[in-house]
Amino acid sequence: MTSSDILLHDLDASGILRLTLNDVGRRNALSEAMLAALGASFADAGSDPAVRVIVLAANGPAFCAGHDLKEMTAGRAADDGGKAYFAKVMSLCAGVMQGIVNCPKPVIAEVTGIATAAGCQLVASCDLAIAADGAQFSTPGVHIGLFCSTPMVALSRNVADKHAMEMLLTGDMTSAARAAEIGLVNRAVAAEALPDAVMTMARKIASKSSMTLATGKRAYYAQREMTLADAYDYASGVMVENMLAQDAKEGIGAFVEKRMPQWQDA
Amino acid sequence: MTSSDILLHDLDASGILRLTLNDVGRRNALSEAMLAALGASFADAGSDPAVRVIVLAANGPAFCAGHDLKEMTAGRAADDGGKAYFAKVMSLCAGVMQGIVNCPKPVIAEVTGIATAAGCQLVASCDLAIAADGAQFSTPGVHIGLFCSTPMVALSRNVADKHAMEMLLTGDMTSAARAAEIGLVNRAVAAEALPDAVMTMARKIASKSSMTLATGKRAYYAQREMTLADAYDYASGVMVENMLAQDAKEGIGAFVEKRMPQWQDA
Amino acid sequence: MTSSDILLHDLDASGILRLTLNDVGRRNALSEAMLAALGASFADAGSDPAVRVIVLAANGPAFCAGHDLKEMTAGRAADDGGKAYFAKVMSLCAGVMQGIVNCPKPVIAEVTGIATAAGCQLVASCDLAIAADGAQFSTPGVHIGLFCSTPMVALSRNVADKHAMEMLLTGDMTSAARAAEIGLVNRAVAAEALPDAVMTMARKIASKSSMTLATGKRAYYAQREMTLADAYDYASGVMVENMLAQDAKEGIGAFVEKRMPQWQDA
Repeated sequence: MTSSDILLHDLDASGILRLTLNDVGRRNALSEAMLAALGASFADAGSDPAVRVIVLAANGPAFCAGHDLKEMTAGRAADDGGKAYFAKVMSLCAGVMQGIVNCPKPVIAEVTGIATAAGCQLVASCDLAIAADGAQFSTPGVHIGLFCSTPMVALSRNVADKHAMEMLLTGDMTSAARAAEIGLVNRAVAAEALPDAVMTMARKIASKSSMTLATGKRAYYAQREMTLADAYDYASGVMVENMLAQDAKEGIGAFVEKRMPQWQDA
Repeated sequence: MTSSDILLHDLDASGILRLTLNDVGRRNALSEAMLAALGASFADAGSDPAVRVIVLAANGPAFCAGHDLKEMTAGRAADDGGKAYFAKVMSLCAGVMQGIVNCPKPVIAEVTGIATAAGCQLVASCDLAIAADGAQFSTPGVHIGLFCSTPMVALSRNVADKHAMEMLLTGDMTSAARAAEIGLVNRAVAAEALPDAVMTMARKIASKSSMTLATGKRAYYAQREMTLADAYDYASGVMVENMLAQDAKEGIGAFVEKRMPQWQDA
Repeated sequence: MTSSDILLHDLDASGILRLTLNDVGRRNALSEAMLAALGASFADAGSDPAVRVIVLAANGPAFCAGHDLKEMTAGRAADDGGKAYFAKVMSLCAGVMQGIVNCPKPVIAEVTGIATAAGCQLVASCDLAIAADGAQFSTPGVHIGLFCSTPMVALSRNVADKHAMEMLLTGDMTSAARAAEIGLVNRAVAAEALPDAVMTMARKIASKSSMTLATGKRAYYAQREMTLADAYDYASGVMVENMLAQDAKEGIGAFVEKRMPQWQDA
């Protein structure tokens, strides 16, 4: 797993991998190259035992401006008017977003600047998000005749219907403070306090058992799509397996003995 | 599509259709006549290219008081104690509510006064809602032995379970400010600012491509009921089709060329 | 239905059953004995016509500390390392939580002190909850290598994903005020105002028809898991049956005649 120019990697000693969108001239647009870099990075980080938590950040005034409209427009030149190309890009993008959800490592978005369209979807797809108070969010596809239909899949799983619909139908910007109120981000903090707020959260999570985090994250999204009765059946089975794992024995033992636990993967 | 005495129609030059509940003496109750008028109006507006956005407003101190209890009670005189009649009215009402959700045009509720029972459901069924600060909401069926079981279908898809349950189990009034906090309306504004707030939102949406709005609204409610993976498959297909439509070509072109787009249906 | 030492019963003249967790020395942990007492109490109360509303409260500084880790640890001594025992306890616990949801009587949590892990799940599983302003909530399993996978079933049905994930991944405490903001409880009040706030809500609900409350509560949770179209079909049928019931005839009649209704079961 190596840094590319457009997506910087920085793994610290505590297992926090910082991925930084760095295609500033294109406002960190989700070009094919950026989607490929993100997809590979989340896949690699998911299976790398050295990575315990992932922070997704960005350089420049835009966190991420969504799809690369120039690339998309160029795709129209094909014989089919771009149909196959658009399908390929949409599939790639949906794969990246679900790759974040399915990644066994918790992912925290550190949002500065503007997150629009698929950039807003990126934030919505992360497990956690903290925004600088100047950050802004929107799903502005409606301005250009292209409804934000894939961003809304993630958005509508974060916020109430009327809030999602207001963003989608008007294309208006949502402030960081409002994004925190409606549940799109966990909270908004002063820009200068953002790195500390994110790292405090990341270090806290990185101190836990990676096995436990992976078990829980997978179970979370799985049970969300089940009926209550099915969710309880499923989650009860997850708890039994978790109880039998070494890290739970160690964790409960350490708690009873009032000492720090030593995780297997630490 | 013509105005009736109990449901006024007013279509302006920008494509904003204002439907005004006007059965003030019956507190705009959802009588059979009112349900029929609403059902026909949303169906007609949905297929009328001149209509771009719908505002649902009301005259009088009550936005809408829900079902017409006098009509319902009269229905008890039938041989079956009213069973067939109640089933007919419930079916008609559920059809109107789903007609709003399935209408290809965005619907904004402009709420003044009191919206109770199926009147509260009407607000919850609209895509967007702005309330005057004196507006109030409740699902008071529990006071009269008739739980608001159909209103709760819409209510529980707008607000969190504990908030919905408090309204349903106590029958208490919810203020406009609280309704905004819990997601039942987008926001509450001073009564004198309400028409402007609604029209600003309506005009903004009316300036978009109707094809795009219809595509997005339909996709929104469809994907909400799918698993994440199915929702992404479905929404990706919607995006590809949307990209191939003329209004997206025009919209993206206009954006790149920094000019105003000209929608096909404008 | 009788009080036990660890779960006190107190039924007042208006039909409000107060269940008080009273295993203070074990921080009201959900031991096998406590789970059995809770399960039996909700089952009995559900079928007892004298009970109209249930309040779940607690003695001591902890509302409920979740599973009894000493009991769980002792279970490891079995030949299978505890697997069968853990499965039994998880099944028992999931049954209690669903027993609250399926109980025909509304259940209000009166939360003082700390509600953690399955204790937080207990609050999330109640229909309504009011917390003292000093109450705190957490799902801290991640600290001991045991993700709160069953608590999250209830938690994630109360609050937005990012809020649930923050509690689950960090294990941090959530204040009562924040719990009210995110929808985990209906509201937070000063500790000295808590009993009055809960009893005002309980008495209000206890004055309604028990048949109506049972019909509505069952329908609420059933329709939450359906598509919109199925939910309307189902709920419309519930409304028709409710209209034909004596308490609705009486309630609507009393409303029209401006008198107090007399419920059949009162």
